[in-house]
This record gives sequence, C-alpha cells and structure tokens, in this order.
Amino acid sequence: MAAGGFAEVDDNGLALQQETLAAIQETGIRALGPNTSGHVSTPAHYTSSFFPLGQIPKGNISYIAQTGNFATHTMRYIASAEHYGVARVVGMGNKLDIEESELLEYLAEDRETKAIFMYLESIKHPRRFLKAAALATRKKPVILLKGGASPEGASAAVAHTAALASDDRIIDGALKQAGVVRIYKYSQLFQAAKALAKMPLPKGNRVSFSAPSGAMLVCMTDLCRRNLHLEVPQFAEHNRKRLQDISPPYIKIRNPVDIWPAAAVSGVEFAYGEAIEAGLSDPNIDAVVSILMLTDETGIPSYDFLPALAKKYPHKPLFLTFSGQKEHMETAKAYLEPRGIPTFQMIEEPFEVLDILCRCGKALNRPLE
Amino acid sequence: MAAGGFAEVDDNGLALQQETLAAIQETGIRALGPNTSGHVSTPAHYTSSFFPLGQIPKGNISYIAQTGNFATHTMRYIASAEHYGVARVVGMGNKLDIEESELLEYLAEDRETKAIFMYLESIKHPRRFLKAAALATRKKPVILLKGGASPEGASAAVAHTAALASDDRIIDGALKQAGVVRIYKYSQLFQAAKALAKMPLPKGNRVSFSAPSGAMLVCMTDLCRRNLHLEVPQFAEHNRKRLQDISPPYIKIRNPVDIWPAAAVSGVEFAYGEAIEAGLSDPNIDAVVSILMLTDETGIPSYDFLPALAKKYPHKPLFLTFSGQKEHMETAKAYLEPRGIPTFQMIEEPFEVLDILCRCGKALNRPLE
Repeated sequence: MAAGGFAEVDDNGLALQQETLAAIQETGIRALGPNTSGHVSTPAHYTSSFFPLGQIPKGNISYIAQTGNFATHTMRYIASAEHYGVARVVGMGNKLDIEESELLEYLAEDRETKAIFMYLESIKHPRRFLKAAALATRKKPVILLKGGASPEGASAAVAHTAALASDDRIIDGALKQAGVVRIYKYSQLFQAAKALAKMPLPKGNRVSFSAPSGAMLVCMTDLCRRNLHLEVPQFAEHNRKRLQDISPPYIKIRNPVDIWPAAAVSGVEFAYGEAIEAGLSDPNIDAVVSILMLTDETGIPSYDFLPALAKKYPHKPLFLTFSGQKEHMETAKAYLEPRGIPTFQMIEEPFEVLDILCRCGKALNRPLE
Repeated sequence: MAAGGFAEVDDNGLALQQETLAAIQETGIRALGPNTSGHVSTPAHYTSSFFPLGQIPKGNISYIAQTGNFATHTMRYIASAEHYGVARVVGMGNKLDIEESELLEYLAEDRETKAIFMYLESIKHPRRFLKAAALATRKKPVILLKGGASPEGASAAVAHTAALASDDRIIDGALKQAGVVRIYKYSQLFQAAKALAKMPLPKGNRVSFSAPSGAMLVCMTDLCRRNLHLEVPQFAEHNRKRLQDISPPYIKIRNPVDIWPAAAVSGVEFAYGEAIEAGLSDPNIDAVVSILMLTDETGIPSYDFLPALAKKYPHKPLFLTFSGQKEHMETAKAYLEPRGIPTFQMIEEPFEVLDILCRCGKALNRPLE
C-alpha cells in the first residue's frame, strides 16, 4: 500500500491502520506497507512500484528498506549510475503486516540473493530479528544502515515511519553479536553493494595499493590505519623484488606502491599490472586497490589488463579508482564495471567499502556461540 | 626542481641535495623542490609545471602542497570535474629552500587568495609556521590535510618526501590553537575548496535541509548529530507555517523538510524554492542543503530558481545534491556550479563540507589570545 497518512501522522491515521490490520487478520491476505512505494523481484519479473520494471537491472543484491525510496529514486540512481543489479527490493513502510524479520528469513534462503542490505528505522520483533540475523549472517553478508542513530535522527524517524526509538548502544551490541555489519552512510548502501555484487569477500584485512602520487599513498595509509581497520603490510620478498626490478633505482619499492616511476619507464599497463598482480598473488595480501592516473599528458592506457587480472585471481577483491580527467574516469568506469571490476570516484571510497567487506567476511566466519 | 632521487631516497641523494643548498646559499637564488612538479600562478599567467597553463582555471583558492600531484593530475581533476579555479598552487617537494611558513605568510596577504589549502607531510620550522598560521587564520580560512597522521602513514611519508615524523597529538593541539582547520580526506581538498570558492562562511552550525525521502532526512540528521558538529534546529514559526501551508495536511512540517508532498501538489520548483527560502531567511538557520529528486517519472525542474535564491541571500551558504538519474545530476551540476552553487554527488558530502566551513568560520572569529 503506497502513500502516507497513517500512524506516522496522527491518531486518525493510526485508526485507519488498525482497521486495515483487522482486515488483514480476518482474510489472511499478506500486506506490505502502508506508507511505502512497493516491491520488486527481478527473477520473477515483478514490481508493484510505479517505477518501470524494465529499467531495473537483475542482479544478486537484495534490499529490505523501511522507506519507499529504494524502489523509486534510489533504484533510478543505481540503474543509471552503477553497473550492478538487484534481486529483491522490499519497501516496508509502516510494517503493518510483513516486517524485516520475516523478510530476512526469506532472503537468507533465497538463491538469487548474494548479499542483503537493510535500511531500518525500527525493529518490530527484536528477538525474532536477531535470531534470523544470527542465522542469515552465516550464509551471506547482512549490512544494516539504522536510521535514528542519534536522538534527533530518531525524532525524524517518528515523523517518517512512526518508528519507535530504542537505545542505540543496546541495538549496536546485539547486532554485532548477530553478525550484522552496521554502516552509517546512505551512499554505502549502493557503494558497498556494487563491491559485493562483483567481488569475493577478502579473507582478511590486509590491503595492497598502488598510486601515481606519494601523497596519495601517505593519505590512504593514514585512512586505513587511523579511520578504518585495514592493515597495509609488506609484500613477500619475491613480490617486492619483482616490482623493484621494474622501477628506477631511486625508488625503494614497498607496499603501498609508488608505481609511476615504473610506469614512466615500462608503460602504464605493464607497471600497474605488475603492481596489482604482486598484491593479488601475495600471501601477505587479502585485497588490492589501484589508483590509476588518467591524464592526456601521461597517456590513457588500454584497460583490458584489469579484467584479465581479476579473472586470473578470482578469490581476492580488486577495486579501481582514479586521479586525473573526469571524462577519462567515466570511460574507465563504463569499461571496467560491466566487466566485473568496481570503480569509485573519490579515492577514499574503495578503502571504506573494503573495510565493510572485511567486516562481512569476519561475521561470516565468526566462531559458533 | 622536478623529479625525485634526493633525500627521500638515500645518502647520495641527500649529498646532492646539500650541494644544491650550498649553491642556493651562495647565489641567493630562491628555489622550490627538489622532488616536485612546479608551481602555478594564474593571476600572473605563470606556470613551471609541465601541465599546460591554459587549462587551469583562474580562481580564488590557493594550494600549498608537499607533493607534486597538485600542479599535475589533481589540477587536471579540478579543471575537468569541478567549476572553480585556483590563484596559486605551489608544489614544495623536499623543501630545500622555500617552505610552508613563508608561503603561508605570502598567501595570507595575497589579495587573489580567498582560502588556503595545505597538504603537508612535515613542518620545517614549527614555531614560524604556527605564528604565520595564527595570523593567516584571522584573515582567511586555512585548511590542512596532514599526511602521516598514523605511524604507518608517517613511514610512507619518509619514502615520499623524507618528511620526519612528529607526534600527531602535539601537532593537533598546536594547529587548533593557531586556527588551522584540519581535514582527514584527500577528496575534501577540492570538495571543500569548491564550497569556499563560491559561498560565504556560515555564521554558525545550524543547518536546514530538504529531501524527497524521509529516510534521507533521518540519515542526514544522524550524520549531522552523530558524525559532524552540525545542529538541525526548528524553523521560526512563520517559516514553519509557510511550508505547512503548501503541504498536504498529512505532513507535519518540521526541519529537516519532507518536501515531496508539497512538490507533488505545487510543483518541484515552487516547493523546493519555498523550503530553501525558509532556511535562507530564517534567523535560526545558518546554512541550507537541498536534496533534489531528478527522475523521469517525477519530472525534471528548471534550475534557474536556485541561482536566483543564492543571489537573494548572499550571506548564507546553499549547497545542492541529488537523488535519481545520473545524467540529470550531471546536467544540474553543469548548470548550477558555473552559476555559483556548489553541488555534490554523494548526499553526505555537502554536510561534511559544511562542517569544515563552520570550523573555518569559528577559527576566523575566535577570541584574541
């Protein structure tokens, strides 16, 4: 049931909602909403949203959202700006009947769903939800953005979906125990989804990265160590030597990799390819990020070496980001993403997303209670 | 002096650097570098970088960078992806002669420079630098990204520019006292610059925002309160009523503004215009962010009401961001940014940038010691 005017507004709306509930209970009909914009199931070619189904790409990511915008304008963003698809998208609205626990139980068993993203403002049956989450998170990643994490946000949530606030610290501990990976940025609902749709989970949190700028190496190392839970360890010696051998002697190769001197000598594709392969093949490294320089002055590489490397090492995630001219970044993204390599516009984003993927891997493999 | 091979590499490089220093001291010639890519001064139509000057837009932002990439590929990004320009850009490299204190003293007095952004991996003469900063920050915003904020980042900085590490906590306290606004994201070196280039500093940290989605209102409120130092206060009653009057009765208007119901009734331009003007004219509000929905289903507005509003209220910052189709977002950005309104691709970004601008305003107006 779409549109608003129910319990989120006033007592009349609440009464209307209770009448609807009585009808549901009498008839046994299952209902979504009210106060939402519908749901989508691409494997079943079905939508109840007023946004056209034909434009929603089929894929392996499912969303449970306590908001109508996922089946509408956010889906429009995903379909127009990113290159991944969705399996099921459920806008729950005020959750009169169908709610997140039941959906989570369903999606945990759903073969079309590789990862579950949730946006929730309240949890209707916390005990059932945490039980469902504890089971689901051993099968696939479950990522949650919880709206109302601040008192002021919680008050905005009451206006939005009549969600009742709970103490955020209690929720946080219980979610962690259940293996749910919590995020705090709306944008990561699609940035992390893009990464999970295409790449495997990293086995651990050790990242290698290469950049055309020492400053970017320094800043991204700071980001990994100061703001995220990523390690930047050294390569195994044979990989360090492999990169040292293609670099001018004035560069002392280490991880992260100052790749431009080698690129200037041996070409962009070759040097970046070597740096990325050193990381993907190294026993000390769990994931690789590469910052490609794209300017007219330094030349635009052919990008085909990147999907080839990703195919050769299917068990480690590889993310690309860029520095240089916007138009070349757009071309690179349009080539790489349909070929399975997630790209990001801001150089911090692949690291922030990798941190989320590491937490998903940790949750998936956590010891039994 | 461009290229590497100096103190950042080995003792031979250090010896070479000392020879150069002796020559500088003997002749009195001033020198930048070594280990950098030059500098740019758009008011003087001058560049020593190998990137063409003609493509660097003239503007009011200046950069002091302990890295070569600002005068090269980062400048390429700014010129191709953003709509603001630079006054002076100095890549200092290993800082054999000219260093950040002297540059900061110069740019503090430079009429072409409205705001100073710095990327530093070390501070050569801390006492002189802090004195220069304490004076400069009373005249214009000084924003610093300090590379090497983590021990591992500091170790990467040694490899990059032979920068010596210092205890980050001591630096942090001294910088704060001197009014320097510290940032931790490389991307903010241009995202905050874009905002400062076009908009005034907010008088305080009270933000009003409007969105087409209750979930976005909730999440951005959480972001303001939980992650940033922004307040989301209520409107003065006449402004609340003004927005209530154009909204369907089932919406209870408050700040942040659930704008879509009014837009559906009265049109996108009118409803968004009213919400933005309520914020820009309200004594309780210091800055306004609007999240515009751009989808074929809901229609694409004309954007000319936005520059008109910004012109009518030149003393409060207004930022735009979007939800919906990528191609419409690009068109909106291409229209709005040259007309003075900064736009952001991810909905968190204008809030993060506003937080930086608030800190700049606070530093500028801090009490005399």
